[in-house]
Amino acid sequence: MTIYDPDTLAWAYLSRVVQGPSTYLGTLVEQLGVQEAARCVRTGDLPLEFREKTQARAHLDTARRDLDLMEAMGGRLVTPQSPEWPAWRMLAFDGLGRAAEDNSPCALWVVGSEKLADVTERSIAIVGTRASTSYGDHVTAEIAGDLAADGWTVISGAAFGIDGAAHRATLGVGGVTVAVLACGVDRAYPSGHARLLQQIARSGGVVSEYPPGTTPAKFRFLARNRLVAAMSDGIVVVEAGWRSGARNTATWGRRLGRPVMAVPGPVTSASSAGCHRMIREGEALLVANASDVVDVAGPVGVGDCSEDEAAVRALDSLSGNSRLVYEALPGSGSRSVNQLAEESGLLINHVRATLPLLELEGFAGSDTTGWFRIK
Amino acid sequence: MTIYDPDTLAWAYLSRVVQGPSTYLGTLVEQLGVQEAARCVRTGDLPLEFREKTQARAHLDTARRDLDLMEAMGGRLVTPQSPEWPAWRMLAFDGLGRAAEDNSPCALWVVGSEKLADVTERSIAIVGTRASTSYGDHVTAEIAGDLAADGWTVISGAAFGIDGAAHRATLGVGGVTVAVLACGVDRAYPSGHARLLQQIARSGGVVSEYPPGTTPAKFRFLARNRLVAAMSDGIVVVEAGWRSGARNTATWGRRLGRPVMAVPGPVTSASSAGCHRMIREGEALLVANASDVVDVAGPVGVGDCSEDEAAVRALDSLSGNSRLVYEALPGSGSRSVNQLAEESGLLINHVRATLPLLELEGFAGSDTTGWFRIK
Repeated sequence: MTIYDPDTLAWAYLSRVVQGPSTYLGTLVEQLGVQEAARCVRTGDLPLEFREKTQARAHLDTARRDLDLMEAMGGRLVTPQSPEWPAWRMLAFDGLGRAAEDNSPCALWVVGSEKLADVTERSIAIVGTRASTSYGDHVTAEIAGDLAADGWTVISGAAFGIDGAAHRATLGVGGVTVAVLACGVDRAYPSGHARLLQQIARSGGVVSEYPPGTTPAKFRFLARNRLVAAMSDGIVVVEAGWRSGARNTATWGRRLGRPVMAVPGPVTSASSAGCHRMIREGEALLVANASDVVDVAGPVGVGDCSEDEAAVRALDSLSGNSRLVYEALPGSGSRSVNQLAEESGLLINHVRATLPLLELEGFAGSDTTGWFRIK
Repeated sequence: MTIYDPDTLAWAYLSRVVQGPSTYLGTLVEQLGVQEAARCVRTGDLPLEFREKTQARAHLDTARRDLDLMEAMGGRLVTPQSPEWPAWRMLAFDGLGRAAEDNSPCALWVVGSEKLADVTERSIAIVGTRASTSYGDHVTAEIAGDLAADGWTVISGAAFGIDGAAHRATLGVGGVTVAVLACGVDRAYPSGHARLLQQIARSGGVVSEYPPGTTPAKFRFLARNRLVAAMSDGIVVVEAGWRSGARNTATWGRRLGRPVMAVPGPVTSASSAGCHRMIREGEALLVANASDVVDVAGPVGVGDCSEDEAAVRALDSLSGNSRLVYEALPGSGSRSVNQLAEESGLLINHVRATLPLLELEGFAGSDTTGWFRIK
C-alpha cells in the first residue's frame, strides 16, 4: 500500500469536494496551508457561501482511493506544490502585465509521462466543431502536423471532429499532444476515442481538474475550455459554429491574454461560419497555415535589431514564473523573497527557484537588503 | 452632321490629348474655362512640365470624329459640366471629411442609357482574379445577384473570371451593372466579352476615361482601377493574388475612403490567398455574403436611436454634392454661392442646385448676406 504525504491527500480530497476553479479555496490554502484548508472544508468551518458550495460533498473522502487508481493507471496528481505545476498559465493579466485573476484549478489529475510545465512550455490549442468537414479535418491535420514537427505541443479536448484531427496529426508526426478532459482521466470520453486517449497519454498527457470517475457535464466542458486556453500560447479555431465550445475556448483565450486565431473556409460551408464571424468581429485573427500561427503566437524571431529592441525582446522572452517574479521586482529599493512571493502570487519555493535565473540573465540583482530589478 | 457645342468639343479634345487624370488640367479648366484650357494645350501655352506631357498629342484634334462615333454607338461624352457627372465620387477625403485629393478623370466616355450619377448612387464594386475557381465564380454570383436584387449597382472591370461573374449575375437578376474599361468604349476588351459588354451597356453602362480607339495598357488598368473604386460605395474582392489588379483597386478604395472587403475561401486554394492576406493584414474586412457587404457599405439602418444619434445619422445620409456643399457652409457668418463653389470644389450650377435641397432638409439656411450651416 502506497504511503501518500498528507499534503497530497489534502489536495486530492479538495479536488474531489471543490471540483473546478475556486478563488476562495486558493486564498484559503494560501493562508492556512492545504491540510488546514482541507480540515476547514471537511468540518464546514467556512464562510456561509463557500460552505454551501462544498457541504454536499464534504463527507466524500476518496483521496486515497483516487490516488491509488491514478497510480494503477500510471498517472499522478499534480498540485500547486508540484515543481511541474504550470502556475503562471492559469493567471489572467491586466493591461500592465500584472496577474489580475487566478483561474487555477485546485489540482490536476494527469496520465502521461511528460512534466506538465514542460509540455505546455510552447503550445498551441487547436479546437473546433465535432461536426467537421473533410476540409476542416484536412486543414487541422496540416496545421497541427506542421506545428508539432516544429516542436510545438498541440493541446485540444479529445472530442470528435477537429479536436481528434489535431491530436491524430500530432501523433502522426511523432509530436507531443495534450488532451484536457471535462471528466475524470480514467474515463474515455468520447468512448470512440478510447484508443486515441491512450496514445495521447503516451505522447504528452491526458489532463483533468476533475477527480477519477467524474462524468462529463455541460458546465465541466466550459470549465475545461478555460484550461485548454490557459495551457496554450495561442488558440486556433478551425471550423466552429457561432455558439460553440470552440468559441468559448477562444473567449477564455482573450480573457487570459492569449492570441486567438481562426481558419477561414468556403463561405458556402456552415462549418466555417463561426470562424468567419469571429474574424469579422475582431475576435480572432485570420490564419491560413502553421506559419501564420507561429507569426502570431510564437516567440519573437531572431534577427537584426537595435539594442533597445533587443532589450524589449529579451524581456519578451521571459515567461511563466520568470515573468511574474520580474514584474514583482521593484525598480527602486528592494524586496525580500517573501515580499516577492506575495507580490507575484507565486509560492515561495518558486520565487526562490526563479530569482537566480533572472540574475543570470541580467534582469535581477540582489544585495543585503533584498532583490531589485535591472532594466 | 451633328452640331456640338464648343465646350463639348473642347472636353473631347482634352480627353484625347491629356488621357487619364490630371490635377493640373483640372486647375487650368477651373481658372480659364474649358475652351481656353484646350487652346492653351493646343498651342503649348503651358508650364514646361505639363507641356511636355501633352505636346506629343496636342495636334490630335479628333474631337468631332470621336463624338460622331459615340453618337453612332448610342454613347455620349460626360463632362464635369454634365448634370450626370458624379463629381464627389472622384474626391479623396481627409480625416475631417474635407476633399483632399481630386482623382477626377478629364471626362468620361459612356455607352449606356442610364445617367452616371444615378447608377453609381448606391453601388458596390466586385473585383477579383481572372483565373477564378468555380468556388469564386459561385460566391461572386451569389453576392452580386443578392446585391443587385436589393437595388445596388454592381461595378466591375469586365475582365474574365470574377469581374465577368459579377456582371453576369447582376444581369441575370435584371439588376444594374457598370463596366469601367481601360480602353476606349468602342473596343470590346476582352474580345470574348463583346456580347457581355453590349448587355452591360443596356443595363447600366460601359464607361472609360479614354477616348474611342484607345488600346488597353498596364498603366491604364491601374488608372481604371481608381475609377472602379471611386464610383463605388465599397469594394469587394473575391479571389485575388497578393499582387493583383483587384488589390490595386482595393488600395484605391482605401485611399478614397471606401470600405474594402474580401471574401475568404479554402486556405488550400491559392486563389484565395490574396484575400486572406488582405484580411489578416487589416487591408480588408471579411465578408461572407451580400448581407455582410450591406452591413459594411450600406447606409445606416433605420431603427430606434436617440435624437443625437438621429442627427448624426441624418448628416451621414448626406452624400455626394450635398455633403461637399454642407461641409463648405460656414458655422458662423455666411458665404455666397461663388464662395461655396470655391470652397467645395464644385461647379457653381451644382452648388446652386444643391443648396435648396439642404435647406429643405434643414441643414442650410440663407439670408440677405448668403448661406450658412444649420446644425
